[in-house]
Amino acid sequence: MSVKHLSTGSKDVPIEPGKIRLYSMRFCPYAQRVHLVLFAKNIPHDIVNINLKNKPEWYLEKFPLGKVPAVIVEGEYLYESLIISDFLDEKYPKRPLYPKDPVKKAKDRLLIESFSKVISLLYKCYLSPTMDFQLLLPVFNEMDAFEKEMATRGTPFFSGDKPGMVDYMIWPWCERLETVRILGGDQFRIPKDRFQRLREWCKAMIEDEAVKKHFLTPEEHAKYLQSHRAGTPDFDNIL
Amino acid sequence: MSVKHLSTGSKDVPIEPGKIRLYSMRFCPYAQRVHLVLFAKNIPHDIVNINLKNKPEWYLEKFPLGKVPAVIVEGEYLYESLIISDFLDEKYPKRPLYPKDPVKKAKDRLLIESFSKVISLLYKCYLSPTMDFQLLLPVFNEMDAFEKEMATRGTPFFSGDKPGMVDYMIWPWCERLETVRILGGDQFRIPKDRFQRLREWCKAMIEDEAVKKHFLTPEEHAKYLQSHRAGTPDFDNIL
Repeated sequence: MSVKHLSTGSKDVPIEPGKIRLYSMRFCPYAQRVHLVLFAKNIPHDIVNINLKNKPEWYLEKFPLGKVPAVIVEGEYLYESLIISDFLDEKYPKRPLYPKDPVKKAKDRLLIESFSKVISLLYKCYLSPTMDFQLLLPVFNEMDAFEKEMATRGTPFFSGDKPGMVDYMIWPWCERLETVRILGGDQFRIPKDRFQRLREWCKAMIEDEAVKKHFLTPEEHAKYLQSHRAGTPDFDNIL
Repeated sequence: MSVKHLSTGSKDVPIEPGKIRLYSMRFCPYAQRVHLVLFAKNIPHDIVNINLKNKPEWYLEKFPLGKVPAVIVEGEYLYESLIISDFLDEKYPKRPLYPKDPVKKAKDRLLIESFSKVISLLYKCYLSPTMDFQLLLPVFNEMDAFEKEMATRGTPFFSGDKPGMVDYMIWPWCERLETVRILGGDQFRIPKDRFQRLREWCKAMIEDEAVKKHFLTPEEHAKYLQSHRAGTPDFDNIL
């Protein structure tokens, strides 16, 4: 696995037959979704990390939008974290990550879709020139629905006894939630009582084998985020 | 089928067992996606139209986001046009709208996803206080990719010999494309040579049985759009 992020002037790493190639960036939460699915389903793959500030010329040729995650599977090029994740779940049916029942599957997809509001609100918070606590409150308001859903489902994970697609698709941002406190100070602490079930869920997620394989501490995420906010994202030296 | 759009103070129409209930609005392109899938797959359903300006209280209780399309299937509530459409394709496997091969399916989903850029650019054009031709040019730039894709695929429809999910998911906005000329004048004519294949595709789409069942003329769309732009959307009297 390439840990160093390839940048302009580099060459792509040749693809091994039988393996999926994942192009990633070590701190990208969208890419993390695909890492989690690949690990959870035990799909043979290798990883090439991309320097998103100075993208390799060959990468832009392959993927003109220049975004990660992207994969090459059997010579075909795919991108978009949710589309890749759904694809992997269909192509590799062992350990399915969605419920079998199409209605339940659609409800899980709606839940994932609704999380995009949490994501965009979090980015506003992370990327504002000053850490503003007011920006975090709407995030909590959106997360109330997930706390409630967890209560309704009554299982340790959104997908039952084991993490499934919902859990893996929302986890990357939950892994990073504590970074707001590190960057913004104690007033940014996530209210314990308000998100009791989600806290239990987080504890359980951290013990999951797939999650462990790509986990970074809030401190590591905070360091990267600081370098990103300063306009000099440090892809390689933080870990 | 309720043609009249139900508004505040109304009562919902009781659901017939064995039928899917679709909540729609006659001029909504997102809702049209679901109409097309229901017709194409011959799925028993009925339609209740919702006045989106004065939403019925019961509708907001059932669907707090208050958006259309929404469906009730076997007592379960679903919304979001793409999630509903994918769900219907899975739940009713006769006449599948996606390719069987997961990679090809993922590529079709990417193509649908990329059309969202056309949609948001079109809305900017439709909703700007004055019809500005400059706003239409980026739409054409995005549509170049679809003209090219059509050439690559070499089939009459994006999905082959018959319309499939890609065709139905992008059609509603293509049905409305001519409205820009009606509203903005002759300079808004869609360049013939630039979109030769898409023009052929449009002609073929209009002959499709599912498309016919929900088709409105560009003039009808333009009338609705004018009422919408004036702040008094006329849901009921245009047709």
